[in-house]
Amino acid sequence: MKKITKLLVANRGEIALRVLRSAREMGLKTVAIYSEADRNALHVRYADEAVCVGPPASKDSYLRGDKILEVCRQLGVDAIHPGYGFLSENAEFARMVKEAGLIFVGPSPEAMEIMGDKLSAKQAVQAYNIPLVPGTAEAITDVEEAKRIAATVGFPILIKASAGGGGKGMRIVNSEAEFEEQMQLAINEATSAFGDGSVFIEKFVTGPRHIEIQVLGDEHGNIVHLFERECSIQRRHQKVIEEAPSSVLTPELRAEMGRCAVDVARACNYTGAGTVEFLLDDKRNFYFLEMNTRLQVEHPVTEQITGLDLVKEQIKVAQGQLLAFAQDDLHIQGHALELRVYAEDPQNNFLPDIGTLTTYVRPQGPGVRVDDGFEQGMEIPIYYDPMIAKLVTFGADRQEAIERMLRAIDEYKITGIETTLGFGRYVLQHPAFVSGNFDTNFIRDHFPAGALQPAAPDETTAKLAAVLTAMLLSEKKAPAAATSETPAATGSSWKRNRLGVR
Amino acid sequence: MKKITKLLVANRGEIALRVLRSAREMGLKTVAIYSEADRNALHVRYADEAVCVGPPASKDSYLRGDKILEVCRQLGVDAIHPGYGFLSENAEFARMVKEAGLIFVGPSPEAMEIMGDKLSAKQAVQAYNIPLVPGTAEAITDVEEAKRIAATVGFPILIKASAGGGGKGMRIVNSEAEFEEQMQLAINEATSAFGDGSVFIEKFVTGPRHIEIQVLGDEHGNIVHLFERECSIQRRHQKVIEEAPSSVLTPELRAEMGRCAVDVARACNYTGAGTVEFLLDDKRNFYFLEMNTRLQVEHPVTEQITGLDLVKEQIKVAQGQLLAFAQDDLHIQGHALELRVYAEDPQNNFLPDIGTLTTYVRPQGPGVRVDDGFEQGMEIPIYYDPMIAKLVTFGADRQEAIERMLRAIDEYKITGIETTLGFGRYVLQHPAFVSGNFDTNFIRDHFPAGALQPAAPDETTAKLAAVLTAMLLSEKKAPAAATSETPAATGSSWKRNRLGVR
Repeated sequence: MKKITKLLVANRGEIALRVLRSAREMGLKTVAIYSEADRNALHVRYADEAVCVGPPASKDSYLRGDKILEVCRQLGVDAIHPGYGFLSENAEFARMVKEAGLIFVGPSPEAMEIMGDKLSAKQAVQAYNIPLVPGTAEAITDVEEAKRIAATVGFPILIKASAGGGGKGMRIVNSEAEFEEQMQLAINEATSAFGDGSVFIEKFVTGPRHIEIQVLGDEHGNIVHLFERECSIQRRHQKVIEEAPSSVLTPELRAEMGRCAVDVARACNYTGAGTVEFLLDDKRNFYFLEMNTRLQVEHPVTEQITGLDLVKEQIKVAQGQLLAFAQDDLHIQGHALELRVYAEDPQNNFLPDIGTLTTYVRPQGPGVRVDDGFEQGMEIPIYYDPMIAKLVTFGADRQEAIERMLRAIDEYKITGIETTLGFGRYVLQHPAFVSGNFDTNFIRDHFPAGALQPAAPDETTAKLAAVLTAMLLSEKKAPAAATSETPAATGSSWKRNRLGVR
Repeated sequence: MKKITKLLVANRGEIALRVLRSAREMGLKTVAIYSEADRNALHVRYADEAVCVGPPASKDSYLRGDKILEVCRQLGVDAIHPGYGFLSENAEFARMVKEAGLIFVGPSPEAMEIMGDKLSAKQAVQAYNIPLVPGTAEAITDVEEAKRIAATVGFPILIKASAGGGGKGMRIVNSEAEFEEQMQLAINEATSAFGDGSVFIEKFVTGPRHIEIQVLGDEHGNIVHLFERECSIQRRHQKVIEEAPSSVLTPELRAEMGRCAVDVARACNYTGAGTVEFLLDDKRNFYFLEMNTRLQVEHPVTEQITGLDLVKEQIKVAQGQLLAFAQDDLHIQGHALELRVYAEDPQNNFLPDIGTLTTYVRPQGPGVRVDDGFEQGMEIPIYYDPMIAKLVTFGADRQEAIERMLRAIDEYKITGIETTLGFGRYVLQHPAFVSGNFDTNFIRDHFPAGALQPAAPDETTAKLAAVLTAMLLSEKKAPAAATSETPAATGSSWKRNRLGVR
């Protein structure tokens, strides 16, 4: 076994602090890195040692793998935890870490490469009979061929320009009768927009829910899943509210998706914590989307329902330890919710609202956990993701978790900047959310222009409603935003291109 | 069912805030009361309405049941939660509340009366075959009679002056041979100290552990237990660190003690949340001590291992609801610890250290819960119990809960007053505590004068050691302090008189 004694956390903000806390509990010595913009950050103060690695811009600091390795050499670090974002999915960096004789707390570079590319990921899971969204394997231009495939896949289908993005050259076709016309329109649109008329044909997933399964593997071939997270509440393709378990999964479906997720992990000899993302349609069919080869932002909801500390599990696995439990030892206990609190102004089209946290009082009490990296008086720097905190609540059941979240939102006092707390309250009180009957179109469906009636209307909500309307009307024009989890995602352009199926 | 719509919390500090949080989550309107010393307290700000009920002294404010009932009338309150301490075990007050047509969130006045008196409690549980510490039922003076009883009970036995207190007139007798001499000495000492030579003979419990069982009953005859809390770490007969589960109970013993606790509750038709206290000796025999007819300070550890919100359960039962679970539905999940953080100066014989919380930064992150009633800049008033906060940690197992507690103690930043945080760290790092092999004599046994070697010595700990020595040397002279849970305990003088068996 490779005992880790000194861990460097190659990240910032809440996730750096999160990892440092677990490392401290395990008795490890800790090293933080920081950019010039983060001199006063909490993670810098929390670590035993901290080193400045460059100017504010990520590419000059948090993404400088060479500098980070130099810090490791100088301080006698023997392992690096990458957090999420930045270098966490950079196979090349993981390889450099290994070659320097250090432990990378994450999967092998090979697993990262396989799952970082859509085609190689599909090839890898082929042997395991994992359901994929049915459609063409390659881009085509032939209308007759496309029609034949569409009939096999079954309507409704989606036609997507192979060079597309932002919805251009995209057509939903509900029946064979309208197929030819729509296909021709899509080809024309794609040709004029991208100079490339080739398209993909794909089953159009109706009522899609984003369900992901947490997996955990050791270096001895043991892989378990830690149940699902429901992440269907998304704003501009960014998760806003996550929960575990999903209110839509039966025990049988959970077990089946869990088995599939473990198979996906097995397909790339996965070690450590990873997440297998699925789309679930309104008939409870599920389709593999991709695997994220790192700790996920929303990992706390899984920690709360399993009682496990995922960061500690990552570190144990990285040391070569066996998993201390088998699948049958794991059970869901209670219900957990996470609300991402962003420094964004809901009254100004959710634009990042940087500034000073003049007041910053966290909610307390039973069933509340706040993962953040700030305290009162601090500045939210403009250089990075505008997430201030992850507000996590848990209770005996979903209703209690929701009630606690609403109570915690009320207790959370933030002044100096605008936040998404009020927006969170809005969603949590909406009948569709409360009922559990929603999909990834929640915002489109439940906040249409002119129909914004909050469950408990008040002035703030009314303002929010007006703003949401404006936002949604403008959304189609906006380019797909990168998720906050991948501020420095590596390669893998297909991740930016899931607009059609989300 | 009697639906509660507006709840008054007849308490202050952390427990008032704790109750208000659950009430808010349940959608109840809330009313706080406060004394003139608590004008700026958090519970006052948290409630929907707050009313000053008098001057700082408890007897003029928090104990003024008449004023509290007047507030209820004026504000249309329909239920009162008493918290712990103050009026919580005052049967007369509970009766007044009922007679005013309001709901008292707690057991019936009759149950409070039965369990508030040692003799009536013993009589009530007689039919249920509950083990009691063997000994004389009444005070005696006859040496031959005493000798006969001692032989039946079995040595070692304890001779206690019936009028005693503070250890005076108390003798531990290890064998029959020395009995007569010791008995005579005890009688002489008792006579000269109290003018009353009568004594009790009781089995001396060796290696005693304080184990209590949480029970919960509804108004329809359903009673369950929520497992045990280990409260053996006590300083001057005041609990310092509590945990659940106890590391010494087997599943069989847990079930047996649980059954006994339910029987004790059944013996007084108990409704709501209550606690049955037992002594456990070093041969795993257990003896019923008393029942506390209220929410306990240390209830959070039970909440963490069961996933239940005990305040909500109290309120549901008070509304006449059925318990939503049976005994078999309840399971222990993980491990929880509670450290009581007092405004006391460990370097000055643990005297209360009141003042202003110049710095007050709570620990955060996974597995940490802080129940308190203060924030930075506030004063700790001199009029009440000096407890600042309950620091609760939980983890997958005892080791993780301990590691998290040590991490949380490090993160807790308090300046302006002295606290018992460092003392907590000292205990948590002690091998006896870590091993789980300790009893209520932990402090006496592990901090003898001149032998204070902390597990990880540092300057603070060394100072603590010196102070502890001083404290312990002076302890025998100090009168038995009231527990913080009963600042205004009602009647029941036997609660003050358990020195010999604790």
